[in-house]
Amino acid sequence: MRTIVVGNVPFGAGSPVVIAGPCAVENAEQTLELARLAKASGADALRGGAFKPRTSPHDFQGLGLEGLKILRAAGDETGLPVVTEVIDVRLVETVARYADMLQVGSRSMQNYPLLVEVGRAGKPVLLKRGMSASLCEWLGSAEYIAKEGNLEIVLCERGIRTGASGEFSRFTLDLNVIPAVHAETFLPVIVDPSHSTGVASMVEHASCSAIEYGCDGLIIEISSGRADAPRPMCDADQAIDPAVLGRIIRFIRDRQEGTRPREWFSASAAYS
Amino acid sequence: MRTIVVGNVPFGAGSPVVIAGPCAVENAEQTLELARLAKASGADALRGGAFKPRTSPHDFQGLGLEGLKILRAAGDETGLPVVTEVIDVRLVETVARYADMLQVGSRSMQNYPLLVEVGRAGKPVLLKRGMSASLCEWLGSAEYIAKEGNLEIVLCERGIRTGASGEFSRFTLDLNVIPAVHAETFLPVIVDPSHSTGVASMVEHASCSAIEYGCDGLIIEISSGRADAPRPMCDADQAIDPAVLGRIIRFIRDRQEGTRPREWFSASAAYS
Amino acid sequence: MRTIVVGNVPFGAGSPVVIAGPCAVENAEQTLELARLAKASGADALRGGAFKPRTSPHDFQGLGLEGLKILRAAGDETGLPVVTEVIDVRLVETVARYADMLQVGSRSMQNYPLLVEVGRAGKPVLLKRGMSASLCEWLGSAEYIAKEGNLEIVLCERGIRTGASGEFSRFTLDLNVIPAVHAETFLPVIVDPSHSTGVASMVEHASCSAIEYGCDGLIIEISSGRADAPRPMCDADQAIDPAVLGRIIRFIRDRQEGTRPREWFSASAAYS
Amino acid sequence: MRTIVVGNVPFGAGSPVVIAGPCAVENAEQTLELARLAKASGADALRGGAFKPRTSPHDFQGLGLEGLKILRAAGDETGLPVVTEVIDVRLVETVARYADMLQVGSRSMQNYPLLVEVGRAGKPVLLKRGMSASLCEWLGSAEYIAKEGNLEIVLCERGIRTGASGEFSRFTLDLNVIPAVHAETFLPVIVDPSHSTGVASMVEHASCSAIEYGCDGLIIEISSGRADAPRPMCDADQAIDPAVLGRIIRFIRDRQEGTRPREWFSASAAYS
Repeated sequence: MRTIVVGNVPFGAGSPVVIAGPCAVENAEQTLELARLAKASGADALRGGAFKPRTSPHDFQGLGLEGLKILRAAGDETGLPVVTEVIDVRLVETVARYADMLQVGSRSMQNYPLLVEVGRAGKPVLLKRGMSASLCEWLGSAEYIAKEGNLEIVLCERGIRTGASGEFSRFTLDLNVIPAVHAETFLPVIVDPSHSTGVASMVEHASCSAIEYGCDGLIIEISSGRADAPRPMCDADQAIDPAVLGRIIRFIRDRQEGTRPREWFSASAAYS
Repeated sequence: MRTIVVGNVPFGAGSPVVIAGPCAVENAEQTLELARLAKASGADALRGGAFKPRTSPHDFQGLGLEGLKILRAAGDETGLPVVTEVIDVRLVETVARYADMLQVGSRSMQNYPLLVEVGRAGKPVLLKRGMSASLCEWLGSAEYIAKEGNLEIVLCERGIRTGASGEFSRFTLDLNVIPAVHAETFLPVIVDPSHSTGVASMVEHASCSAIEYGCDGLIIEISSGRADAPRPMCDADQAIDPAVLGRIIRFIRDRQEGTRPREWFSASAAYS
Repeated sequence: MRTIVVGNVPFGAGSPVVIAGPCAVENAEQTLELARLAKASGADALRGGAFKPRTSPHDFQGLGLEGLKILRAAGDETGLPVVTEVIDVRLVETVARYADMLQVGSRSMQNYPLLVEVGRAGKPVLLKRGMSASLCEWLGSAEYIAKEGNLEIVLCERGIRTGASGEFSRFTLDLNVIPAVHAETFLPVIVDPSHSTGVASMVEHASCSAIEYGCDGLIIEISSGRADAPRPMCDADQAIDPAVLGRIIRFIRDRQEGTRPREWFSASAAYS
Repeated sequence: MRTIVVGNVPFGAGSPVVIAGPCAVENAEQTLELARLAKASGADALRGGAFKPRTSPHDFQGLGLEGLKILRAAGDETGLPVVTEVIDVRLVETVARYADMLQVGSRSMQNYPLLVEVGRAGKPVLLKRGMSASLCEWLGSAEYIAKEGNLEIVLCERGIRTGASGEFSRFTLDLNVIPAVHAETFLPVIVDPSHSTGVASMVEHASCSAIEYGCDGLIIEISSGRADAPRPMCDADQAIDPAVLGRIIRFIRDRQEGTRPREWFSASAAYS
């Protein structure tokens, strides 16, 4: 597996990486507070959306450039590398100035001009799986990025849309894809337990479960948990408290130091 | 329902519209030949891809600007308005110079910057449904376009991805969405029987079926049918002959002149 | 294609067959009234459930044997052959005494002991597709029946469960399966527009649409439409009025006598 | 949560239970060998199919009554309680004489006469989720069993059919359903990592993953792993070696004795 370094954080080097932060950058205080909480909980990198792809144009679209600056400042203060989504091919260069890693969202997985541009941006890329994308399509999208010479790609499973989606969870978390990715490519694959469940109380189990399945990390939405904190503007139902984030990270650390050698590499090899 | 005029062709005015043409503009001779065949068969407008969204970056990506010029010339010669897909938000202005109608493809249905830009382009838009998009998401995307002041939007059902997709057809044609669209909005909705079946021999039936379900038109991929013609570079399995296209169009005309009054409007009203 | 004769009604003989009736046999008056209305509207056969498979055991389960008798009497009085569902393998013989055709429901498509028993019952069988059944599984189920020597099988597409199901329609009507069935087997295939839409105002269009796609018939739930009639005990949202049923049947007849020769057989042959 | 005791093995009592054995009882030697291997690996109960629901009637259907006897003997010799599927409502009594737990398979989840009969059989029931069943339908099926007075029901998630099924795994394992079940009912829920992946090399990870997600146990298909052993007659691609089974069971035991208290009960409570 290829090791992808983001800031100073290595993905795919054997130790699962945790990216945490708010769904959206709402203001400087909120983002800085959550960055500190993420850091204190043991997270390796910071996420936060400055450009939010919303189903309706009347919903909060993100703070844009101002959001990027806030995120960058929070990353600098905490020493956490920052990951943020770029939606607009014309803004790749701008976003790349502020972020350590560019995220291509589910809805953009087949935005080929965007993929080409992030392939040229000289930054690592977090490529989310489309809501009903096949593995073949997903890797085809990675190929668009790689073709530009950028092999610093981390894949992210975030749940797919199925007949089961919507009844008790937002999407259907498809963990079976993890060994399939490991068998087909040298790219690391992380999991987003926030969108794939859509339910805050499921996130911890989904996270630990995904780690046991062999994923290379997690990207998790958090909120402060303070009773007086305003409700997040996006995806409030799936944000977890820093305390829960801390438990997830301790689970990962304990497991890394544990007595069970995980022969998951050999299992993936057997698959191919 | 709102009437959307493309060139001189009215969508949603009571008579189903047929857009036909090659999947991709491959060269001037091919496109002109197919434009003439489409015209002779009775088609109302010409389609052809100059920018092709391919799963792999190593596959034919389209002729780009040259393709637009070829398509425009073919449209001018036959008098058919032209519809073509724009993938890159930076090329909306360029594509709008050559096309009478801008197509937003399935993979771009949630490319919000693109939607905003086509909303400002001053041309009618053909908005395809995403492969697993809900009606709510689809109409949300239409709202991005409309919010810019452009209400000239025609929706297009092109099949969705389901557990059944791939066994005998490429996607699952979801005709039930037609009355749902008619109940929820004033926009016309056409059907793409080519992608939704993926099988040339199913296209005729899927077309007539979609017309009976009350759609406002069709967009169909054709090939010349000449024995010595080279195989299309994209989606060859689903292209139909001009003879079949002619049958579909005769079906529509006979039906329009038929003795059965279609009270489908009242059925849609009853749905809401 | 094989012609399957039910009572005196031939399925697959070139003229689409319409089976209509109540979802459930609720009492003698209701069933007889609906049988007469179905007959008057031009239906070829009568449906009605005596054994209803309900998601909850606390919901109305059907009248059982009494329901069979009521249905038989209504069939005898109107001259319509009767189709009814058998759920319990121990009751196949009983149901076969009263029905002209045994229906195997979606939920029973892979009830193999039941399939074997209906294979031995000496009556034609209406085999509904399972809610997420592949064509391969569906035909495998038909094979269980055929293996017992009973080739009098009519298939029925009734909508499949997909990510789209539930938003605006109960299931997703998969009409693409019709030519696939015609290419793979000699069995006729009809469509259930009632369950596949789940919305009464969609049924007419879904019906005409399915006929245009080349299906061999329809099975439709009706209610009396009388203002003072009680609401049906099962699936009330999808039952249509006799007037609508009449329009559907007139559509079929007009089409049969129409000037357009339907070369759908050749299209299906081309598929294989 | 309700504790369901099978033989002497408690489900839902806080310690995940592992059921293991062959897909099908093929002969006495094979079944006894696998029962011993399962026992030696630490399994709590033995599975084996005597009645196999096959897509085609020409495939091996199981040994029937002889298979039950073989399974019972293997269970008696090893001291493992036995779980086996009953497909035919007329054989519930017979199967209940030989088995400690009756399995209702996915294809039978809505075989309501069968559910009523197993509700009366006086034995615990393993109720598998249907291939596209909603949680509501699944619990409705459990209700049919419970209504007969039998509350000894263990649910089993075995993967659902989605657009992703078939590309790299047989079904899509839907672990999100585990906390949903725990929130909605008092019944334990186990996971079948064999069918839900369909790939032997995925089973170990899927198993550990499911345990981390909070399931109450696993049901796993094994083969002997001997180089000279004949290939299993059913589902050979997903059977794992006893060595792998042993690793899964050690994972469970280590975790039970581990330093991390799993507050998964509270997470499920938070969900409701």
